[in-house]
Amino acid sequence: AYKRMPRSVEGLKGAGEWHVLKTLVPNLANTNVLDLGCGFGWHSRYFHDLGANQVIGIDLSEKMIQTAREMTNQEGIDFRQGAIEDIEFKAGSFDVIFSSLALHYVKSYQEVVRNVKQLLAPKGVFLFSVEHPIFTARAEQDWIYDSKGNIDHWPIDDYQAESIRQTSFLTDHVVKYHRTLTTYLNTLLEAGFLIERIEEPKPDPAILAQNPEYKQELRRPMFLIIKAKVR
Amino acid sequence: AYKRMPRSVEGLKGAGEWHVLKTLVPNLANTNVLDLGCGFGWHSRYFHDLGANQVIGIDLSEKMIQTAREMTNQEGIDFRQGAIEDIEFKAGSFDVIFSSLALHYVKSYQEVVRNVKQLLAPKGVFLFSVEHPIFTARAEQDWIYDSKGNIDHWPIDDYQAESIRQTSFLTDHVVKYHRTLTTYLNTLLEAGFLIERIEEPKPDPAILAQNPEYKQELRRPMFLIIKAKVR
Repeated sequence: AYKRMPRSVEGLKGAGEWHVLKTLVPNLANTNVLDLGCGFGWHSRYFHDLGANQVIGIDLSEKMIQTAREMTNQEGIDFRQGAIEDIEFKAGSFDVIFSSLALHYVKSYQEVVRNVKQLLAPKGVFLFSVEHPIFTARAEQDWIYDSKGNIDHWPIDDYQAESIRQTSFLTDHVVKYHRTLTTYLNTLLEAGFLIERIEEPKPDPAILAQNPEYKQELRRPMFLIIKAKVR
Repeated sequence: AYKRMPRSVEGLKGAGEWHVLKTLVPNLANTNVLDLGCGFGWHSRYFHDLGANQVIGIDLSEKMIQTAREMTNQEGIDFRQGAIEDIEFKAGSFDVIFSSLALHYVKSYQEVVRNVKQLLAPKGVFLFSVEHPIFTARAEQDWIYDSKGNIDHWPIDDYQAESIRQTSFLTDHVVKYHRTLTTYLNTLLEAGFLIERIEEPKPDPAILAQNPEYKQELRRPMFLIIKAKVR
């Protein structure tokens, strides 16, 4: 099912937050980059094209890693199967660590952040997107509709309860972890990061003009992007 | 009506976010403090008691400023009637600028932040609370109830539409300004602040134990607190 999503087929252009995320990518010339939850490797290839020396992409799914390898012919990109929580590299190995929509599947965000901090070189950048806490708060993760089936509003509930959310996104029994905004940001600050920028992307105006149904994405933020730098 | 709220009658202890906010107050010994939207002056007096040299409290309401003066007998606290947007002091005059639940009434947050930055001394602290963007997004600013009148969830709508919200909080025709989290944080970063900490306070556990109805405050964040420091 994930394979048929626009972002899987069309790559970066098929991702509604890409027009914002790409503006936050730092200068990658001669850098080492780690891509946590790389999926089919779209971002890894993009980073390599931007001049990164070495890109390592990690994903839990053996199938995705296989497909990523098949789709990639550049030297200097290395895809490895594994859990984000289990990565082991020499301290200070990377200039940029990136993650797109993967960290809300990870049980211990704190652990990942501490690990990322260790793996980054001085002034290293940690850039990631997650599903927005407003999006993940209520287990149902769906709009409230009126009696005619039109969207009425987006519901929030259990915001302060940081725990598992069982949802039925694409396939059944997806386990996500809801975290508050406070946790996303203060964990970074406590680990020794500076917050450089946050974004709650709106739809790309060009896409919005052609697809009015995207207007609903102005009603609630779906993604949260954070750019942090080693202090 | 505002005069009868717990926070107005009981002071700081009557404010549901105070147990969190107070942990973020920096060392005030020998500091100059500015309190934007000081109301009856509870925070100003507290800051003075903590050792601040000079506290200036500003509020738009002449009545509140009068009451604040009547309630205050310490030297070194100066209450002045005026708009937050219109404050004028010498650059670098303050070590700490504070604001409790006032900035969502101000039309230009950007202007206030730039002004605050100017008025702060090097390493100066800007500590403020506002109604949370999740709270201000939908104009009605009320829960959705089920058919029995029980709270079902908190609704979000028009999140990305940063503009006036007409609500009927306490008195009719209160004008608030909804801003996204992105605006609250990036405006500070762009003005030259470091983000030190953010909080979305939960109810005080002690109060929660005695008043189970406060549990509903775990379902959505009502307040956002930001502590920032001049870079």
